[in-house]
Amino acid sequence: MQKGLVTTLLTAVVLSGQVWADPAAPGVAPAPNGIQLPANYKDWAVISISHRVDNNTMRVIVGNEVAIKAARAGNTNPWPDGAILGKMVWKEAAKDSWPKAIAPNEFVHAEFMFKDQGKYQDNGTGWGWARWLGMDQKPWGKDANAEQECIACHTPVKSSDWVFTTPAQLP
Amino acid sequence: MQKGLVTTLLTAVVLSGQVWADPAAPGVAPAPNGIQLPANYKDWAVISISHRVDNNTMRVIVGNEVAIKAARAGNTNPWPDGAILGKMVWKEAAKDSWPKAIAPNEFVHAEFMFKDQGKYQDNGTGWGWARWLGMDQKPWGKDANAEQECIACHTPVKSSDWVFTTPAQLP
Repeated sequence: MQKGLVTTLLTAVVLSGQVWADPAAPGVAPAPNGIQLPANYKDWAVISISHRVDNNTMRVIVGNEVAIKAARAGNTNPWPDGAILGKMVWKEAAKDSWPKAIAPNEFVHAEFMFKDQGKYQDNGTGWGWARWLGMDQKPWGKDANAEQECIACHTPVKSSDWVFTTPAQLP
Repeated sequence: MQKGLVTTLLTAVVLSGQVWADPAAPGVAPAPNGIQLPANYKDWAVISISHRVDNNTMRVIVGNEVAIKAARAGNTNPWPDGAILGKMVWKEAAKDSWPKAIAPNEFVHAEFMFKDQGKYQDNGTGWGWARWLGMDQKPWGKDANAEQECIACHTPVKSSDWVFTTPAQLP
């Protein structure tokens, strides 16, 4: 009886980590294509960063557990189903305390790619695409076709599974 | 009996999250001042990023759970005891797929600040300082006085609890 209870409890703990890993953010409207904002993206581990000097923005690229495991294993072409890549974007500003360091200023948006070759085969990429704007996380795009704009921009990296990011080297 | 067992198990699960949150990385030598590399720093959430255009490096600043909680609450002057700030540093490179995006190239080092006003009062900052070099994470510094070099560089930000980083704005 005790052994059964222990097994049940530990199973519940393990499963809950899986089931609850990427819940939808409460109080945030879904993107026009129905994709929901992952609640915990700000807690996800870093895959890489970038500084776009063409539009003066700073970016962190993070991933859910499936994505981080894939990134660290070099398993990114293709990325596995279940991987979610998130990108937090800020306007840039030089730091007062170190003017030669460029750092985030105003938060611009958070954008995501959700890998599921079955679920997202219709758009031809195997990824679901979504973006939420600003501090109030307003869904971006007029309708479900908005993701075509994401896809058009990412087409030059079709051969790297539609992803610009290369995981940063880490020990 | 069952209720006691349930309580014991759940307590163990909760406590293990606390106790094991910042274990030392196995197989990595401590810094000369005795500080050990946190095993899970690559999984910590992002506090901010920076691009140092004076030495052409890209940086992610991450924090342990105490630090993230403090950063999101605006409780950073002073940072609370138990907070650990980590910084991963790379040489920069323009991305082949988007030349106006500057991204991490070779990993340089990981450096840390450990807040404990009691434990680290002797160096005058309330922080313990340490750095590990390169992909093999070799401890930096000849002896325990090496942290004086960290402190000298951080003295201009003494009034912000010796920390250059301002937490990035997030929804």
